[in-house]
This record gives sequence, C-alpha cells and structure tokens, in this order.
Amino acid sequence: MVIQLPESEARAMLERGKVARLGCIVNGDPYIVPINYFMKDGRAYSHSLPGLKVDALRLNPRACLQADEINSDFEWRSVIGFGEFEEITEPSMREQILGQLLLRFPRLTPVEAAIATDIDTPPIIVFAIKIERVTAVGE
Amino acid sequence: MVIQLPESEARAMLERGKVARLGCIVNGDPYIVPINYFMKDGRAYSHSLPGLKVDALRLNPRACLQADEINSDFEWRSVIGFGEFEEITEPSMREQILGQLLLRFPRLTPVEAAIATDIDTPPIIVFAIKIERVTAVGE
Repeated sequence: MVIQLPESEARAMLERGKVARLGCIVNGDPYIVPINYFMKDGRAYSHSLPGLKVDALRLNPRACLQADEINSDFEWRSVIGFGEFEEITEPSMREQILGQLLLRFPRLTPVEAAIATDIDTPPIIVFAIKIERVTAVGE
Repeated sequence: MVIQLPESEARAMLERGKVARLGCIVNGDPYIVPINYFMKDGRAYSHSLPGLKVDALRLNPRACLQADEINSDFEWRSVIGFGEFEEITEPSMREQILGQLLLRFPRLTPVEAAIATDIDTPPIIVFAIKIERVTAVGE
C-alpha cells in the first residue's frame, strides 16, 4: 500500500540520490531527462550542455526533481522536489560546482571535462534547482 | 558524448521498458511519478489509484513517459515519449488491461489485486498514454 513518507525522509532521499529525473515544461508538454546532481543547502546542482532543456527552463523556470529507490515492482519509494531553475554564471561559483561534480562523477566525458576545466568559455551550463518543497511516497 | 538514437531504437526502448516515469503538469508545475506499464499499439497502459496525478491529467491530458537504461553515471540511454492521457472506462477493456498488468506485475498488492478483480467498482483508474512521438538519447 502506498504511503506518504515523512518530510525528513523525503529530504534524506534527495540528499543521498546521485541520479534523478529533472522535469520541466517544453512547449506546454511535460519533459523529463535524467541528470547527475548533488544537493547543498537546499539546492540541487547540476550541469548541462546547451539545448532544449536549458532553453525551456530559461523561459519557464518551474522544475521538479524526482529520485527513486526501486527494489522490485512493488517495493519502491519515490521522492519529488519542486522548485525553480537558477543559472549559475559567476565564474568562481561555476568552478566550485563543476569541481564537485567532477569529484562525484569522475566519468565525465573528456569533452565535458575539458569544457569544465576551461571555466571562461561557458558552453556548459551550470545550474541549480532551488527546492521549495518535497514529498515522498513508498510502499 | 550524447547522441540522438534512431527512432526505431527509441520505440524499442519504450516497448521493452517495465518501469517508466510519467510526467504531467500539476498546478503549473512539472510532476513526475514512477509507473509500471506495458506498450500495445502505440499506447502505454497503466493503472493508478485516484489522486493528484489523475486529477491533473483529467484537466490537462498532456503527458510524457520517460524510461532509461543506466549502466553507469556516463553510460546511459534515455527515451521519452510525448502524448496524451486517455482514461479507460469501458468495462471489458478495463478488465483486459488490468489482467495484462497483473500478469506482468504479479506483485500487485492484495488491495490492488482485490480492486482489480472487482471491475464494476472503479476506484482504480485504468489509463493509456497515447504516444505521438518519441525521441531517445544516449552515450
């Protein structure tokens, strides 16, 4: 039976997740893409190459982040955090976040790693989702 | 490096998936929830208890279905299908779909199984997402 989990557990799930699905709205349609992320001070930090997702989030910053822990078809928990897209443009902040991402996800592709090191040319987008509320269910 | 996969492969990924994330729009916010589903004739069939997701999809039927195959942080593929929510109310059709879902996901909880058997009382919602277009990326 599906039950609501306490908010503290919902937040803990988001904190310990490494892969989540980012939801946004693209031309009126819901859109979902998997991302690597880490949480810090209530924000989920990630990065992206330019494209559909970032273009859409610049127009409509409403976003959600969903992570789940699925052990079997009917033994799972899912957390969702709702919030807003914030683009990180300040160079030292970008460098710090990209450093953390590289540390946690060492298998960034060579292209991404090269871009990430060269902080002055920003084809790579660094962003946060500021999480306003979270809710989790499970069974 | 992230590349676009051929449409045939995108469709094959949706066909072979069992768990996907359903995206919809709830009060203007993107919303994501994991579902069990199966594909038939271009539709993803699933079921749900009444609640936020179904209420929202009745108001705004635009939906997406995202499935991924993640082997490591940077070896993954993700498919997304865009389409519309359709509620299945015709009793014999409901029975057929619930039968298929029970067959594929035998660990339906006793409550769900009991509800599923009693097709005349429909607190359980049976629905399809009619997939209009698919796109997949991977690296």
